[in-house]
Amino acid sequence: MGTTAHSLDDIETPSLVLDVTRMERNIDRLTRRLTSFGVSFRPHVKTAKSIDVVERLLGDRAGPITVSTLQEAEYFAGCGITDMTYAVGLAPGRIARVQALNARGMNLSVLIDSPEQARALVAAAHSTRGTPGVLIEIDCDGHRGGVRPDDPQLLAIAAVLRSGGVDLRGVLTHAGESYSCRGGMGLPQAAEAERVAAVSAAERLRAAGHEAPVVSVGSTPTAHFAQDLSGVTEVRAGVFVFFDLVMHGIGVCAIDDIALSVLATVIGHRTEKGWLLIDAGWMALSRDRGTARHPVDQGYGVVCDVEGRPVGDLIVSDASQEHGIVSVRPGSGSRLPDLPIGTRVRILPNHACATGAQHDCYHVVRPGSRELFATWPRMRGW
Amino acid sequence: MGTTAHSLDDIETPSLVLDVTRMERNIDRLTRRLTSFGVSFRPHVKTAKSIDVVERLLGDRAGPITVSTLQEAEYFAGCGITDMTYAVGLAPGRIARVQALNARGMNLSVLIDSPEQARALVAAAHSTRGTPGVLIEIDCDGHRGGVRPDDPQLLAIAAVLRSGGVDLRGVLTHAGESYSCRGGMGLPQAAEAERVAAVSAAERLRAAGHEAPVVSVGSTPTAHFAQDLSGVTEVRAGVFVFFDLVMHGIGVCAIDDIALSVLATVIGHRTEKGWLLIDAGWMALSRDRGTARHPVDQGYGVVCDVEGRPVGDLIVSDASQEHGIVSVRPGSGSRLPDLPIGTRVRILPNHACATGAQHDCYHVVRPGSRELFATWPRMRGW
Repeated sequence: MGTTAHSLDDIETPSLVLDVTRMERNIDRLTRRLTSFGVSFRPHVKTAKSIDVVERLLGDRAGPITVSTLQEAEYFAGCGITDMTYAVGLAPGRIARVQALNARGMNLSVLIDSPEQARALVAAAHSTRGTPGVLIEIDCDGHRGGVRPDDPQLLAIAAVLRSGGVDLRGVLTHAGESYSCRGGMGLPQAAEAERVAAVSAAERLRAAGHEAPVVSVGSTPTAHFAQDLSGVTEVRAGVFVFFDLVMHGIGVCAIDDIALSVLATVIGHRTEKGWLLIDAGWMALSRDRGTARHPVDQGYGVVCDVEGRPVGDLIVSDASQEHGIVSVRPGSGSRLPDLPIGTRVRILPNHACATGAQHDCYHVVRPGSRELFATWPRMRGW
Repeated sequence: MGTTAHSLDDIETPSLVLDVTRMERNIDRLTRRLTSFGVSFRPHVKTAKSIDVVERLLGDRAGPITVSTLQEAEYFAGCGITDMTYAVGLAPGRIARVQALNARGMNLSVLIDSPEQARALVAAAHSTRGTPGVLIEIDCDGHRGGVRPDDPQLLAIAAVLRSGGVDLRGVLTHAGESYSCRGGMGLPQAAEAERVAAVSAAERLRAAGHEAPVVSVGSTPTAHFAQDLSGVTEVRAGVFVFFDLVMHGIGVCAIDDIALSVLATVIGHRTEKGWLLIDAGWMALSRDRGTARHPVDQGYGVVCDVEGRPVGDLIVSDASQEHGIVSVRPGSGSRLPDLPIGTRVRILPNHACATGAQHDCYHVVRPGSRELFATWPRMRGW
């Protein structure tokens, strides 16, 4: 376009907007909370996928972080981060890529939950250096992968690693079911179940003569609601940096903690239907409808003015690829406001991880301002 | 890493796989159908976002195509395509960008449905060359934007354009509600309603003394089920190039017409739950759950072997960011097959437009083969 954009009035829409003051407040709040428990914090960078955000999390430290893909590990390694946990179950075909990172001086740990994966690591350790330290995934709530703390597989995996000289670092669990809690109800219990599962698995390993120095737990909801972290050594969380409408719906944050939004332009009116049309559809907002079964269904997102203040009771009630339909929330007493064609709005997302992934950069602002003071790139891919 | 991948056994997972033979068959089928009606075909490239796919649609012609963003228009202009329709309601702030393309020799038409947009075009036409030809959006089924064929706004828009010397090209409509039909039921009717709305609007314009040479209709379902296209001059469709489980669910294609899939790796087993875990979650598959309310809910996708044949009755029943949970479809008599950790599978998507957008390139294969014969880049952004 030839000129540099200085304001949210100038950039193309749809675009991803980050309120950095809200983000810094979210980071500060959770960091203080975890410090008060005396545990270390290993933020999950799958939400942000940006070194600029990670610098706000770590200062000048070279970790620790959690990653969800080896592409993230390679990107952050290139940015100078060395202490990383790859927290998705290891495919044996990825071991060489992990070894290559560790041979370059990274300290990248991997996650497994089966003797087959342990055997693959043992086999790889015979041939090449850089074999990673290993965390065993513990299932605390039946959500996804992992072994239950009392499963015989737990000790079988540890035995395979020991027999092959591969470093067992400890255990890792994730209370994925906590995202299904509501209004804060059940979250302290989910956090305690997560802690007990991880700590008891680590104790079982230690009782069998294994070292298990790392006891890693975490999800954004449980990190904010845990009342006791005895025995835990580190907490992971990701979406808290930005928060979103799902986290608001389950009682973890306020609307004005949400730091991420999508800037959009009004492109049409269907007054007889009670609709405005905007140029942000699911390509810009993502298809995530995480609040669909919440008591308050936020559609594809909550509509704010260009400075980030919610407008009446407007939500994006439907979306196609490049169109959003904006209407008043069902049951609201509000009326559709008069927003002329060309008006800019900001949409708060259901799920920050999914919405962020639809964009290549953050347009960074301060609260209540349209002025852009930075553009931060995002990475993607596997 | 470091070597060139020649096969689906070698590339990283998750990755996007395109069966080019199925794609060519899909293109050939619709092209023949529309040729038999004597209408021209203006494929929508928002699904593919790839010049390599568009070359299979157009041969060596420089159009016509339909685009959903100006980024697409600029990308395809750079590839030598000149005849384009930008089929999302025009934000006045985008007129300069459209004019810049047309001043470079493109023939990019725009879509409007209000006198305000017409006035903005008239104002821009006074100051700068390259003002686009205009199509008026007609609402045929209450799905999204547009004016009804009998709305007084239709003639008001045309009058503003004429008074300002802006070229009215004709009308455009899209039967968006056709995606909610089932099993082919209602699709011929949706196609006829789409035709009648567009043709009657064009006739109304002509009766008022306006030229309206273009009568543009289209959606993948109606393009395949129209029985009469009298008065229509061109048809648009996009997702037909790849098809997907939504199109299968509404009766527009067979499972083995679906040309797009996501290659994934088995990373874990939860046999007691009836689950396999794969490394394709919603980041690779998209959050689209378009079959959720179909008689057959396909979850996040249908599981095939690495050569593209469906495996038992397996679907991706749940997904987190980088994990998919694979299980047997509820009510099926099938048992969970023994797929060891490391096994590669291919997942057919709910919605090809959404799943494709999560990836940066196509890994191109022939049916029943693992051999890669090309990698085609995809573009993205606005």
